[in-house]
Amino acid sequence: MTPFIAEILGTAILILLGGGVVASCVLKETKSSGSGWIVITTGWAMAVFIGVLVAAPYSGAHINPAVTLALALEGSFPWKEVPVYILAQLIGAMIGSGTVYALFKDHFDASDDAAGKRAIFCTDPAISNTFRNLLSEIVGTFVLIIAVFYISGAELHGENSAPVGLGSVGAIPIAFVVWSIGLSLGGLTGYAINPARDLGPRIMHFLLPIKGKTHSNWSYGWIPVIGPFIGAVLATLLHLMLS
Amino acid sequence: MTPFIAEILGTAILILLGGGVVASCVLKETKSSGSGWIVITTGWAMAVFIGVLVAAPYSGAHINPAVTLALALEGSFPWKEVPVYILAQLIGAMIGSGTVYALFKDHFDASDDAAGKRAIFCTDPAISNTFRNLLSEIVGTFVLIIAVFYISGAELHGENSAPVGLGSVGAIPIAFVVWSIGLSLGGLTGYAINPARDLGPRIMHFLLPIKGKTHSNWSYGWIPVIGPFIGAVLATLLHLMLS
Amino acid sequence: MTPFIAEILGTAILILLGGGVVASCVLKETKSSGSGWIVITTGWAMAVFIGVLVAAPYSGAHINPAVTLALALEGSFPWKEVPVYILAQLIGAMIGSGTVYALFKDHFDASDDAAGKRAIFCTDPAISNTFRNLLSEIVGTFVLIIAVFYISGAELHGENSAPVGLGSVGAIPIAFVVWSIGLSLGGLTGYAINPARDLGPRIMHFLLPIKGKTHSNWSYGWIPVIGPFIGAVLATLLHLMLS
Amino acid sequence: MTPFIAEILGTAILILLGGGVVASCVLKETKSSGSGWIVITTGWAMAVFIGVLVAAPYSGAHINPAVTLALALEGSFPWKEVPVYILAQLIGAMIGSGTVYALFKDHFDASDDAAGKRAIFCTDPAISNTFRNLLSEIVGTFVLIIAVFYISGAELHGENSAPVGLGSVGAIPIAFVVWSIGLSLGGLTGYAINPARDLGPRIMHFLLPIKGKTHSNWSYGWIPVIGPFIGAVLATLLHLMLS
Repeated sequence: MTPFIAEILGTAILILLGGGVVASCVLKETKSSGSGWIVITTGWAMAVFIGVLVAAPYSGAHINPAVTLALALEGSFPWKEVPVYILAQLIGAMIGSGTVYALFKDHFDASDDAAGKRAIFCTDPAISNTFRNLLSEIVGTFVLIIAVFYISGAELHGENSAPVGLGSVGAIPIAFVVWSIGLSLGGLTGYAINPARDLGPRIMHFLLPIKGKTHSNWSYGWIPVIGPFIGAVLATLLHLMLS
Repeated sequence: MTPFIAEILGTAILILLGGGVVASCVLKETKSSGSGWIVITTGWAMAVFIGVLVAAPYSGAHINPAVTLALALEGSFPWKEVPVYILAQLIGAMIGSGTVYALFKDHFDASDDAAGKRAIFCTDPAISNTFRNLLSEIVGTFVLIIAVFYISGAELHGENSAPVGLGSVGAIPIAFVVWSIGLSLGGLTGYAINPARDLGPRIMHFLLPIKGKTHSNWSYGWIPVIGPFIGAVLATLLHLMLS
Repeated sequence: MTPFIAEILGTAILILLGGGVVASCVLKETKSSGSGWIVITTGWAMAVFIGVLVAAPYSGAHINPAVTLALALEGSFPWKEVPVYILAQLIGAMIGSGTVYALFKDHFDASDDAAGKRAIFCTDPAISNTFRNLLSEIVGTFVLIIAVFYISGAELHGENSAPVGLGSVGAIPIAFVVWSIGLSLGGLTGYAINPARDLGPRIMHFLLPIKGKTHSNWSYGWIPVIGPFIGAVLATLLHLMLS
Repeated sequence: MTPFIAEILGTAILILLGGGVVASCVLKETKSSGSGWIVITTGWAMAVFIGVLVAAPYSGAHINPAVTLALALEGSFPWKEVPVYILAQLIGAMIGSGTVYALFKDHFDASDDAAGKRAIFCTDPAISNTFRNLLSEIVGTFVLIIAVFYISGAELHGENSAPVGLGSVGAIPIAFVVWSIGLSLGGLTGYAINPARDLGPRIMHFLLPIKGKTHSNWSYGWIPVIGPFIGAVLATLLHLMLS
């Protein structure tokens, strides 16, 4: 499998399962409707687990443009492959959220909550505040990237190093990191901490003929793209300074 | 232990614990009645953990006809053993759900919810829609099988390869995969993702003299059998194409 | 550390944390009052994790007379040490539940629920039925012991073999097994699955001057002692037959 | 990275994520408001996971003065470094809780619950009782430190030994230990079990201009400092006696 395909597959599965758990909880008439924050955060954590598992042997399982940027900036990933990885992640995220829509179509139709329907695709802030929402995405991604450096030991293994040791058990730590960020900081802006995770599905929300949908909130859409990149840069700089 | 016995034992424990957690939450007057989706999905994930743990050294712990089909199609499991494995899985599932009934008999008698009683045995859709329900089972199983290929590295180890490395710790990833599928997609059709898991207990629901039971919903019963097989075939084809 | 002390320490910590999570949920005016089944079952699972962790290097971390009996019957543990282990487990369980009472004393005093207070110490059935309650404890312990054989590989390592490989990570599988049994079968009889876990604290409930306590339900008390022993014998026989 | 910086970073991330999960649940208008004890305890456990992960290779990841004291007393950590570590932990805790305030500022402003706001920073007892609250912190930390000795095998590896083997997977056991203590004993006093975790944020609560804040409860503040130290000493003495 080429890294390009692996990143598409890994990100598609990430967003299928991550968007799926939000749909499961937010939409009406599912068996899991209204299950709450522990289900949503555990669901996203395990979605990361499978996404990393599937992509790791072939692409290093970035499945997040902020991770790709961080590894390039740090010197362990070639800059010339960065655009290809990010494109794959964006395509994967769009495929994943399109699949969520196809699966939950009847439940979309059965629900009236337009904001909830959009939340299945892309994030929005609990309280709107440009500076603080941006800060939330920066800090969440900063924690993610700092942890990724320690988990992957990328600086030791060079190009395309996978954040997975010990076979599939080695994908558990990154899942626990995302569990943590979701549980602790996710209540602020829905923890995109991944530009592709937010932008790809937001495009899909814009394109798809979802019954009773609201606008795709493009005025907010730059924050979960720029914020994670800033967080990744800051984490990488700190990592380089300290190591 | 022969693979045949191991598959019976593993599947019986899977369904005992999986059916048990549904009974625990759905039936009245248990200590855990009404505990909700996090309990149900964690219970099923851990049921898979023990089922895999117990069967892995002797049969490779398929405990799911869709896994058996996928490994045969992929070439790492002999076709001639497929019927024996599937028979064992079906027998195991029937033993498991029969044990659930024996254990929870007083709680069955104390409950009036006929649909809930059936849900302890077999799955049904949140919103009935043949195409979309089938799609749900296909996609859920597709994710399961893609993950199984990565976890087991079956293509490397040949016949009867166990999806378990690192001793019993190696059974954790497959449990987390099922946790994920349940949390994210299970709200649609109850995530059979395993033909034996649904058909065996459905037969038991039909046969057992459950107080105040409803029909066994045979008109839906083919979806959680055929859907997982289709998902397994698609995942295997993708895996073969990409590897 | 002698095995005797290790079994006391491991069981005391098990019951301190296991009884503690019940007290946390059942008693009034704790920060976690009424937190429900996911908290109780996760709490017991992690209590097993620490109990096993602490005792494993010195005694093999049985911390359960049913495990001791099973290993002796299977031939991997000397019969002459069985009484010493069981005595240690009983002492540990009494120390653990006494500590729970000392810690939660003010919350015992603030609560009126006499049955709930007793449930912090010892188990009782959701629906009283001698045969079926016994069956519940037999089946739960059967699953535990079958899993213990696979986790410990006791038959390979001989006397005092610890159910822990991979350092402390190796204690996770046994915790997940108890998580599973609790989630899936615990709603029936409160899953003693360990004679010392039930009898030791029941004696303490009888002895301690708990405000507004009810009787110690001795007429039920033999079931969570005998049931686990029967389950352990059956699991061992099956294991010996099959291996 | 120097151990000093590593301890600051690890403790800052611990408190950012630990304080964050309390803020997420306690404050109004977050997406996770009112999510309950399973979210809070899982959040703290995973916060420990990341804190340990990040600091382990450079400082041994004490991130808790009680751990530092225990390892020094036990002889595996040099006494002369103790003040430096504790200072780093205190600084880290203050940075972490300051970041929580910066992130959740709008939600602090939207909430009226002054006691809840303080609980984001520092602990308080469910029922005030000097002796018993102190006992709760002693026992909780005793369990933590006993487990740390087994996880780290500190006595074997000498100075600055990290409580992490198996790469990042090795940080899971300590997270599960804190999960356990939180689930089982945390309902009493909010389980500081770490003097820096309580004192640093309490100082920040005192200093920060939080809207509608109450007093910083200094009369209680000595208990979550002294209690963990006593628990650490007792656990170390027991460990030395028994090993």
